Amino acid sequence: MHIKTKLISTAAFVMGSWMLAAPAYATCGVNGYWGSECGPQTPEPAPTTPGDITNTLTGGQVVAVTDINLAQAKETVAKYGLKAEVYADGKALIAAKEVEVVLVTSWGPTHEEYVLAAIAAGKPVFCEKPLATTAEGCMNIVKAEVAAGKRLVQVGFMRPYDAGYRALKKVIDDGGIGDPLIVHCAHRNPAVGDSYKTDMAITDTVIHEIDVLRWLLNDDYKTVQVVYPKKTRNASSHLADPQIILMETVKGVRIDVEVFVNCVYGYDIQCEVVGETGIARLPEPNNVPMRSAAKRSVEILTDWKQRFIDAYDVELQGFIHSLVAGKLTGPSAWDGYAAAVAADACVKAQSTGAI
Amino acid sequence: MHIKTKLISTAAFVMGSWMLAAPAYATCGVNGYWGSECGPQTPEPAPTTPGDITNTLTGGQVVAVTDINLAQAKETVAKYGLKAEVYADGKALIAAKEVEVVLVTSWGPTHEEYVLAAIAAGKPVFCEKPLATTAEGCMNIVKAEVAAGKRLVQVGFMRPYDAGYRALKKVIDDGGIGDPLIVHCAHRNPAVGDSYKTDMAITDTVIHEIDVLRWLLNDDYKTVQVVYPKKTRNASSHLADPQIILMETVKGVRIDVEVFVNCVYGYDIQCEVVGETGIARLPEPNNVPMRSAAKRSVEILTDWKQRFIDAYDVELQGFIHSLVAGKLTGPSAWDGYAAAVAADACVKAQSTGAI
Amino acid sequence: MHIKTKLISTAAFVMGSWMLAAPAYATCGVNGYWGSECGPQTPEPAPTTPGDITNTLTGGQVVAVTDINLAQAKETVAKYGLKAEVYADGKALIAAKEVEVVLVTSWGPTHEEYVLAAIAAGKPVFCEKPLATTAEGCMNIVKAEVAAGKRLVQVGFMRPYDAGYRALKKVIDDGGIGDPLIVHCAHRNPAVGDSYKTDMAITDTVIHEIDVLRWLLNDDYKTVQVVYPKKTRNASSHLADPQIILMETVKGVRIDVEVFVNCVYGYDIQCEVVGETGIARLPEPNNVPMRSAAKRSVEILTDWKQRFIDAYDVELQGFIHSLVAGKLTGPSAWDGYAAAVAADACVKAQSTGAI
Amino acid sequence: MHIKTKLISTAAFVMGSWMLAAPAYATCGVNGYWGSECGPQTPEPAPTTPGDITNTLTGGQVVAVTDINLAQAKETVAKYGLKAEVYADGKALIAAKEVEVVLVTSWGPTHEEYVLAAIAAGKPVFCEKPLATTAEGCMNIVKAEVAAGKRLVQVGFMRPYDAGYRALKKVIDDGGIGDPLIVHCAHRNPAVGDSYKTDMAITDTVIHEIDVLRWLLNDDYKTVQVVYPKKTRNASSHLADPQIILMETVKGVRIDVEVFVNCVYGYDIQCEVVGETGIARLPEPNNVPMRSAAKRSVEILTDWKQRFIDAYDVELQGFIHSLVAGKLTGPSAWDGYAAAVAADACVKAQSTGAI
Repeated sequence: MHIKTKLISTAAFVMGSWMLAAPAYATCGVNGYWGSECGPQTPEPAPTTPGDITNTLTGGQVVAVTDINLAQAKETVAKYGLKAEVYADGKALIAAKEVEVVLVTSWGPTHEEYVLAAIAAGKPVFCEKPLATTAEGCMNIVKAEVAAGKRLVQVGFMRPYDAGYRALKKVIDDGGIGDPLIVHCAHRNPAVGDSYKTDMAITDTVIHEIDVLRWLLNDDYKTVQVVYPKKTRNASSHLADPQIILMETVKGVRIDVEVFVNCVYGYDIQCEVVGETGIARLPEPNNVPMRSAAKRSVEILTDWKQRFIDAYDVELQGFIHSLVAGKLTGPSAWDGYAAAVAADACVKAQSTGAI
Repeated sequence: MHIKTKLISTAAFVMGSWMLAAPAYATCGVNGYWGSECGPQTPEPAPTTPGDITNTLTGGQVVAVTDINLAQAKETVAKYGLKAEVYADGKALIAAKEVEVVLVTSWGPTHEEYVLAAIAAGKPVFCEKPLATTAEGCMNIVKAEVAAGKRLVQVGFMRPYDAGYRALKKVIDDGGIGDPLIVHCAHRNPAVGDSYKTDMAITDTVIHEIDVLRWLLNDDYKTVQVVYPKKTRNASSHLADPQIILMETVKGVRIDVEVFVNCVYGYDIQCEVVGETGIARLPEPNNVPMRSAAKRSVEILTDWKQRFIDAYDVELQGFIHSLVAGKLTGPSAWDGYAAAVAADACVKAQSTGAI
Repeated sequence: MHIKTKLISTAAFVMGSWMLAAPAYATCGVNGYWGSECGPQTPEPAPTTPGDITNTLTGGQVVAVTDINLAQAKETVAKYGLKAEVYADGKALIAAKEVEVVLVTSWGPTHEEYVLAAIAAGKPVFCEKPLATTAEGCMNIVKAEVAAGKRLVQVGFMRPYDAGYRALKKVIDDGGIGDPLIVHCAHRNPAVGDSYKTDMAITDTVIHEIDVLRWLLNDDYKTVQVVYPKKTRNASSHLADPQIILMETVKGVRIDVEVFVNCVYGYDIQCEVVGETGIARLPEPNNVPMRSAAKRSVEILTDWKQRFIDAYDVELQGFIHSLVAGKLTGPSAWDGYAAAVAADACVKAQSTGAI
Repeated sequence: MHIKTKLISTAAFVMGSWMLAAPAYATCGVNGYWGSECGPQTPEPAPTTPGDITNTLTGGQVVAVTDINLAQAKETVAKYGLKAEVYADGKALIAAKEVEVVLVTSWGPTHEEYVLAAIAAGKPVFCEKPLATTAEGCMNIVKAEVAAGKRLVQVGFMRPYDAGYRALKKVIDDGGIGDPLIVHCAHRNPAVGDSYKTDMAITDTVIHEIDVLRWLLNDDYKTVQVVYPKKTRNASSHLADPQIILMETVKGVRIDVEVFVNCVYGYDIQCEVVGETGIARLPEPNNVPMRSAAKRSVEILTDWKQRFIDAYDVELQGFIHSLVAGKLTGPSAWDGYAAAVAADACVKAQSTGAI
């Protein structure tokens, strides 16, 4: 179990009837993964497990579980010692009386349906990114929530919960560098599998920058452009890698995001904000400074799960906390929609080359 | 005043009947402080509040409270919304039936008495450092625990719970620098009040290095020596500051600890381990790298409470988890005794100048 | 006098008749400046003075001097204790019998004329950048040199003589990061005067990156594009600042250069090369790491003259050395032409917004 | 073997009749080495060659050479293309009419004799460290110079000529950290040969810190103590390695120098000065920051000759300049004496263990 984050407890203990449900995650249930990117074909372990909700974070309890593979759902319940019912499908789970809150962590294409079902049931729902696979789907959710007359949805963008980004935002908001003018970003993975396609550089990778920079800058996007540097020999033949995404915000800030998903050397997230009077940079993950073998060095992470592991816990704990407080404050359905619109524009720019 | 410890406690996660007691901390109750070093004369806020035990960490609940100032005990209960009884004194609290685990966070001179009482009652007890104000007192506790036939005591040394020290220990234990030969440490505070005396450089300050280095090196102390550099003009007239503590371990490792409690520039904890094939260093606290006003810079903390704030939570959460698991694993009464013996030797070396 | 660079001596002492001439620099003669950017209206001190050639570097001696203000030329001779004749103009100086080598450090618009005159006289000539103010002028010089049948011209691009860039190139050339794919650069000045116009971001500022990156990558430019981030309030009303110059090389490397000439915080040159297997970065100028006033910090230079001060000496000494060796090896007239062509394209891109 | 000094000399720039003599260095002549510590048994290349004096630095020329192996002296003259006479021995060389300045770079035990001879001849003399092998020998030289009524001697301590130390001293002298109170140093070599004995940790290694810290702090030594950490398995059986030298200055500054000559990982010189209000540190040698193979890293030098290579040239060039200016300003015979006295005390402390 990893370092738990702080958080204010919730109504759970008081009411004794606190519940969360994580439908349909079991296809990725190996090691307890429940990330949205994860379809039947790509099971992968993730930082936070269903067990963590019940046993690590405070204020929540997993009371119901489902999966397209029910055997795996049962196995997960056993593995983490959950006192949770296994339901036949997401629909049944969402309808279940003891389920008060829904966690959607299934394969991306199923998100929209489950989130809409939760809204229809009047139950708060946390949905892993993407909120829906199209901007239109996101808008359906925004409209449903508006019709419900109440904020019910939180999208799983976890970078704003990272301590580094929060410290960076504080410097900017405190005027430490004057108005932001330019943001230089890099999003680098050591390697991706052959199933990673060129458009996933946007939909799976830059989507995080799209989300976090809106929040960091309190701004929105106006134009996008994609340029292709010389391709690395370490990428699949069908994949353009690296790519550079150029974005312009409504306030005029220029953003460049280098996406390099076969960079070999490590998992490396960079963000440098150039302001009118100074520059602030996302802190590097902390590690032991070494002097060894003719090098001063600090390790770079190679596994993305390590990089934001704390942020995942802070995010979910914040969700629980805000439920108890009666007011969701995390990334909204609108944020999910805005990110989807920007991502669509980027994907379009990938093929046109236009600005 | 620097390096405050914090704490809290808990139990009964398994049993469903949560309890905890924090006797006699109210003299420092302003802002919820309840640190052990803190006598009536030095109320100060601390990182972890009684409320955190119940509301932030999982698995524990404060069910009983006392203080030498009962009004303050009551105020604390109200302030943090605790469902806790206020007892007349530590003795009554420890005897209370609903109290399963005891947290001793009162003024140092009272620790020994309360810890012995908890042992006598067969209740696990977490005691802020120092375990007792003398090595003899610590030994009394060790003997009582042995007589009880069961490990019941954890001492509040929190540095081994700091992520940086843990990463450093991992590098060493993994053989990343070969056998340790030398350790260079610095323990610097921006300033201390006039009540800080020369011997407190040992008993309040270096005590943390004494504790953490035993753990870091899996070693114990053999000799100590204290030398006095030129005194800073920023220290009280009665205080020798800075000081350098030189220690030799049983394995022959040489340690130098610069203690400088009026260093002006910040709260700064350094630890560099020189091994046979390389050097590993305690990571600096992470912060936003800036370029501003003709400087590349990163902020240094000035408040000790920020430096190890996470470690305090990890420490207490670890205590709770180990209670649930049925086996205490944190710093033991013996560790408290060993630290007290080394500290006594250092204090003696302060006045003799001998090795 | 500043730190002198190493270099192999030249024929000077042996032959006793070694000569250099620095025509027409006296308009900027205040403090001995002889930089090309410097017209009558902008006298500024520069890192290397005429006195340095005679008294600091080995192998050369200033034997003739001129300036549009002859009084200033005389003053300079006196100031540096030169044994040098003052000539009426550049033409007379170049023709002078004792002049073996010509240094052109006058105002940019006069460069072409003087360089052509030196070539006509069969004398080696070092010309401060720009070689000429137009690509056409540069081509005239290339053609004249070709017609002369011998390499005679070196252009004053000094960045390839900077120890940091050389170390960076060595890493790349040694395969330390695989093939370069992307280069991220920044060229920041604390402030520029009101006379600095938008196109000078190219012709005065990015011209250095244009030159050094060709050399660093052994590559040439294919396309350029300029985008304008939100403008800083610290720039003159007529000036677009910052700007981002996007370039693509023949090999497909993508380069982005942030030009920010009113960045306030310092003079800061950044260059990061992203390769197939790793990333190498231009070293920061070295300075004393401090812990002070709640910051770990290192000073950033604010004066461009400090940044490349050693490079200027290495450059000129290299020029002298290569003369003695009988073969010029520094930046050639062709390099000057190539830079001019790229700069012209960038200036054009500034106004079109096109790629 | 570590920290070699280098040298060269000069004179007569004004007079136009340049001369220099480097007696008795040829035993170390392989690769042009001529360091003073270097006896017949340990030939090693050094950063500066005799050729550099004539061909690299300005203002000096090697006009006479000798060596205990005359064949090697002749070879050196040929190798560097010197116009220099080979003399039978140091005495003859010093007496030679065309020799205006003497460079003593022979084996340590011969230094005193040659320096005294140069003083007797009224010729300025640059002597590689040590000035003499005993404090008494140094005092003989001081007295001879006083008797000569004129400063003639410069000792080859080159660290004060290192740009990093100079920048560090400037910070201190400018009051950037208040009064210095403590200095933490480390002097580490990757490995030494079997001929390196325990006392050489003082006489060959710490001697550099002894010299440079006197200059850095404008202070002198009062007490010394040596402590022995656990010995590395990588040292010869007869060698105590690492060692820690503790010194106290007249002003009360406490200095600790870790000497670790088989540290494996690199050649690493550290110097951190703790002042009343802040801390300043010797800059690390500059190098290319890399991201590669899951590490952020910067190379550490492994060859001592690279570390201070520029300082050697600056030192000798300074010597030449000060000769021309008519007033020696570098490390004096008294500095050589003071260092010898401190070194003697350290060597004594090595065996007594006393303070």
